[in-house]
Amino acid sequence: MKPLVLHPDRLLPADPGVRGIARELYREVCDLPIVSPHGHTDPAWFATDANFPDAAQLLLVPDHYVLRMLHSQGHPMEALGVRGKDAPAASSREAWRVLAANYHLFRGTPSRIWLDWVFSEAFGMEVLLSAESADLYFDRITEALATDAFRPRALFDRFGIEVIATTEGPLDTLEHHAAIAASDWQGRVITAYRPDPVIDPEFEGFGANLDALSDLTGEDCRSWRGYLAAHRQRRDFFRRMGATSSDHGHPTAATADLSPQESEALFARVQADDVSPAEAELFRAQMLTEMAGMSVEDGLVMQIHPGSFRNHNPVLFARFGRDKGADIPLRTEYVHALRPLLARYGSDPRFSLIVFTLDESTYARELAPLAGHYPALKLGPAWWFHDSPEGMRRYRRGVTETAGFYNTVGFNDDTRAFLSIPARHDLARRIDCGFLAELVSEHRMEDWEAAELARGLAYDFAKAAYRL
Amino acid sequence: MKPLVLHPDRLLPADPGVRGIARELYREVCDLPIVSPHGHTDPAWFATDANFPDAAQLLLVPDHYVLRMLHSQGHPMEALGVRGKDAPAASSREAWRVLAANYHLFRGTPSRIWLDWVFSEAFGMEVLLSAESADLYFDRITEALATDAFRPRALFDRFGIEVIATTEGPLDTLEHHAAIAASDWQGRVITAYRPDPVIDPEFEGFGANLDALSDLTGEDCRSWRGYLAAHRQRRDFFRRMGATSSDHGHPTAATADLSPQESEALFARVQADDVSPAEAELFRAQMLTEMAGMSVEDGLVMQIHPGSFRNHNPVLFARFGRDKGADIPLRTEYVHALRPLLARYGSDPRFSLIVFTLDESTYARELAPLAGHYPALKLGPAWWFHDSPEGMRRYRRGVTETAGFYNTVGFNDDTRAFLSIPARHDLARRIDCGFLAELVSEHRMEDWEAAELARGLAYDFAKAAYRL
Amino acid sequence: MKPLVLHPDRLLPADPGVRGIARELYREVCDLPIVSPHGHTDPAWFATDANFPDAAQLLLVPDHYVLRMLHSQGHPMEALGVRGKDAPAASSREAWRVLAANYHLFRGTPSRIWLDWVFSEAFGMEVLLSAESADLYFDRITEALATDAFRPRALFDRFGIEVIATTEGPLDTLEHHAAIAASDWQGRVITAYRPDPVIDPEFEGFGANLDALSDLTGEDCRSWRGYLAAHRQRRDFFRRMGATSSDHGHPTAATADLSPQESEALFARVQADDVSPAEAELFRAQMLTEMAGMSVEDGLVMQIHPGSFRNHNPVLFARFGRDKGADIPLRTEYVHALRPLLARYGSDPRFSLIVFTLDESTYARELAPLAGHYPALKLGPAWWFHDSPEGMRRYRRGVTETAGFYNTVGFNDDTRAFLSIPARHDLARRIDCGFLAELVSEHRMEDWEAAELARGLAYDFAKAAYRL
Repeated sequence: MKPLVLHPDRLLPADPGVRGIARELYREVCDLPIVSPHGHTDPAWFATDANFPDAAQLLLVPDHYVLRMLHSQGHPMEALGVRGKDAPAASSREAWRVLAANYHLFRGTPSRIWLDWVFSEAFGMEVLLSAESADLYFDRITEALATDAFRPRALFDRFGIEVIATTEGPLDTLEHHAAIAASDWQGRVITAYRPDPVIDPEFEGFGANLDALSDLTGEDCRSWRGYLAAHRQRRDFFRRMGATSSDHGHPTAATADLSPQESEALFARVQADDVSPAEAELFRAQMLTEMAGMSVEDGLVMQIHPGSFRNHNPVLFARFGRDKGADIPLRTEYVHALRPLLARYGSDPRFSLIVFTLDESTYARELAPLAGHYPALKLGPAWWFHDSPEGMRRYRRGVTETAGFYNTVGFNDDTRAFLSIPARHDLARRIDCGFLAELVSEHRMEDWEAAELARGLAYDFAKAAYRL
Repeated sequence: MKPLVLHPDRLLPADPGVRGIARELYREVCDLPIVSPHGHTDPAWFATDANFPDAAQLLLVPDHYVLRMLHSQGHPMEALGVRGKDAPAASSREAWRVLAANYHLFRGTPSRIWLDWVFSEAFGMEVLLSAESADLYFDRITEALATDAFRPRALFDRFGIEVIATTEGPLDTLEHHAAIAASDWQGRVITAYRPDPVIDPEFEGFGANLDALSDLTGEDCRSWRGYLAAHRQRRDFFRRMGATSSDHGHPTAATADLSPQESEALFARVQADDVSPAEAELFRAQMLTEMAGMSVEDGLVMQIHPGSFRNHNPVLFARFGRDKGADIPLRTEYVHALRPLLARYGSDPRFSLIVFTLDESTYARELAPLAGHYPALKLGPAWWFHDSPEGMRRYRRGVTETAGFYNTVGFNDDTRAFLSIPARHDLARRIDCGFLAELVSEHRMEDWEAAELARGLAYDFAKAAYRL
Repeated sequence: MKPLVLHPDRLLPADPGVRGIARELYREVCDLPIVSPHGHTDPAWFATDANFPDAAQLLLVPDHYVLRMLHSQGHPMEALGVRGKDAPAASSREAWRVLAANYHLFRGTPSRIWLDWVFSEAFGMEVLLSAESADLYFDRITEALATDAFRPRALFDRFGIEVIATTEGPLDTLEHHAAIAASDWQGRVITAYRPDPVIDPEFEGFGANLDALSDLTGEDCRSWRGYLAAHRQRRDFFRRMGATSSDHGHPTAATADLSPQESEALFARVQADDVSPAEAELFRAQMLTEMAGMSVEDGLVMQIHPGSFRNHNPVLFARFGRDKGADIPLRTEYVHALRPLLARYGSDPRFSLIVFTLDESTYARELAPLAGHYPALKLGPAWWFHDSPEGMRRYRRGVTETAGFYNTVGFNDDTRAFLSIPARHDLARRIDCGFLAELVSEHRMEDWEAAELARGLAYDFAKAAYRL
């Protein structure tokens, strides 16, 4: 078995001079608290504080990054412990052995970096994961997870998380957040308003969702006026439960600015059975602008995460459902798409919009120029497939010269893989310190400026941008 | 107050070995004269040789790079000294203080590099710009600008400018260029033919511009034949006033090759009130090919600068007009777009076409392959938002392996920020020497070859490509 | 005359520490046999083993990379030894002198690296190619080519080629492959099934090709059923002649999944004189899925090479025909395009699809996510214009973090420039070792893992992916 050692200089630039500067910068930010303003952890974890079941159920089965890579090399989902419609899943131990025996597939990927951190720092493993060490890993991790020290609140505190945001839909009653607030635990777990299920006419059960929203709010959500009032009511409820942001995961970044009459007529059409894709797209577009208008009123920071083709593999989707690693990025246009919204609210000092992309070709061409002009617009960090060392470097190199650092918002871990959160923030801090060190070593910035920015990127910017 | 020091090795690669090679290359080109074949300085400066008013009016108010960044962080244009339709502007000193207090926003941007050069090299400032040094800067710079040493011609000579091109429309009478020619000053300030206002049917006042062109030339510019004759006449006039190039800033790179009959009919349609966007686009496309044909005749080098969405922010445009930092790049297609023109003139040895882009995804995919095949086609340097250290590196890395160095045309500063011109050329020379040094250190090129190329990129290529 | 020296550390990273690691990795793979699973050498060379004529006919006239660069700088094709319809070509010696006098144009391009290897390693030249050394080169190379040591089979053996694939159409009778098999020479030269001429309705002579295919197979290739049967028959013949793969060079990556009835009707329409571009595109799309289905049956690995605008310059094409360096990459979409095929066969364990691109913006956005999910899909190496040091680095940086290394297939030389094959593999091995060394030096991978991968990328992956 090979040793597992996290090198203290990992992910810092190779050049000894640059690395020395990066190391100094990193030293000052590595222990800052974690601010996690956008993610997908389950609030029930923190409400119930129940132990996680075992290594595979925590670290393999729910991680679509890990599932996708193993699946791409021919391992069926069942063998990875994922239950399908027509097939029983492998046991946790069996599934774990598949991961272990194929751990080499992750060489060069961020999953490897995150997992090694979790293994080494969270669980104290000292050998590399492999077929030989599979059972050792499974037993050690599963045992640890049964202890108090590995219950969700204890990990939250141990990880130094200052605040974490989860993501819920308007139909969610936020009882877990209420339970957390009512408990004697001090951890700050807030929600974010993600209304896709009641905004996207192509979402599964859109009509039923509108009716449920009516029931929940007492508004008539089949009328445009009642529908908007229901959004306002739920946003207000989310805000009172700690939310400081909304989030929108549309297929494109399209926005629109229709008249109230046009919007009302469109809303009627999208409730019909024969809604066209163009009508659905226009409605989503109009609703982004409506949401922006509500953000001006209530102060929720607005996030847009566009450009993913969800559930690309229909065979997999039919058997195993969504979020199994078959979402694929799409080319995404922002300049025309965002214009209606930005023309209306982009210069309003009360409004703040954070845009993400999966299409890196827009960093320098579209997003940095837009963010470098509109007061309301800021850029989210390198997202999803680009939440990685090379991805972050491309992001900083592509964005900074036109948008500067101050039109970016620090790091988002955007994950449901709770244990990897410190690993992800640590990776981001290392890469950002490395980038800043390059600027210092090329005399494009002074060392004290880089130190200010290192802290900003690691902590201050996220707090400010998300109004935390 | 922090010191302001320009490090002699700034912008050179961090690796000590590579830097040593880059330093040697740079030493041989740093003092070469400046050839500025494409830009937007005001010929009136050199005609009248009047003093510039003050620090803010010279370095802040006209610089859309600087305005856009400050605006993006919530500073209203009025506070930056820009006069709008309905609001008075802050005084120059007040505006300057806003820049000074927010100078940290420019960290990591080329504006910071250019401005620091201007502050240090042109004005001898020894502390960094900040809220504390704001008034010191404003007073020192404003005082200096009142002296003879800072009048335009003196700066031109001091900067070692061998030739500079301005840009004028066909309706311009070029009286400033005439005045310069008639003066006893030896500086070479030439014009370039930029006919967008009389070519683009969507340009403000297109019809009136045609009539003005008729008046100016004695041709009937409402007829296709007269319109073409007027272009020929104005091109000839521009050429006699020193122009060696034309320039075309269309929304796309579309070209067309219609028959004379089709062109004539199209020209009639685009003068109608109900011209469609498609007709306007086709007319611009045809006119690029017409201009190429005239270039074959008269020898003006043709430049195309496509792909900018001008005045993206309608609120800002309504109050402050154009060129305030709200132009946003668009995805731009070249392979189909340029084909009609290239099929017609791309192999003609008399023709030279220089193409620019704001869409870096086309460097390696479209532009380098096109320039690496067509005899007439050369690539302009990294442009506008990409006129920056990382932008230039991406350009060289993306373009060189397919187009080589010899299908590129050296550096353009493309600026109206006169004092930054030496800073911009210096930046380009440093980055190019760094790139060449990387090739040498990886043994992809010999040192003496790199030295030849360093000189070519800094000086020879621009003179040759622009026929200067 | 300047010396020609291939530095032992060429193409390895400049940083001394990283270079040291890269050198170790390279040392272990530099002498591995060459596996060339996709290329365009002429099987007649190995069947007849005739001597190559002279330096220009071997190294200049057939090399579209070299032709295009010289052409782009104004050298007519005739002067380069290329015969046109209406003009005699320069002699080989004259053409060679043009290359020699313009060899500086190739600075910074991979052609320069490949050619210098050929000159130095294959022919023992010790001075750089230039106007002065032109005749020395021509004479030395031409003399060498007349010797037994430079006949195709001798070079094949000397280069350490374990297996090479050529590419033939369904109408090819593969007599050269038969001759090689019947000879006493042990070299392994296999074919690949490239059916574009009988699949693409826009291919020159499509109808006649169908008839020829009928003649060859005894099937009625004007009927859908007969046409498919003919494909099966030819694929089987190719497979028996050694083929392990098919290859498809369509303008786009579009695939379709029509019903048999729809396909049959479409096949009838595309044989009509008035076939529309959309029908032709849909037919090509459907045929990719048909070919995938046949691959499931017969085990041929399927390759798709989309996105080239062939023969962009109509003037050149009219005079000199195809493959003269006027093919230009196009923006290419994969997510929607490949979905019909992947939905049908992408999860089938018997199927293997290797996709290439000329559009680097799809590496991280589309192709790596697709390959990182679908079991059947793997990514071909950096292709054509991107088969270069910077191109390969962008490929590895863009692809690895999402697809990993194991969803890639090693190197393809994809060339008809036989003598450059070892140079191309050597270049790829050096760049890959450099990339791996960067990962090691940033502690993103252990040295022993990098060593495994270096061997995989140089040798193992190609053998496995192409079932060789």
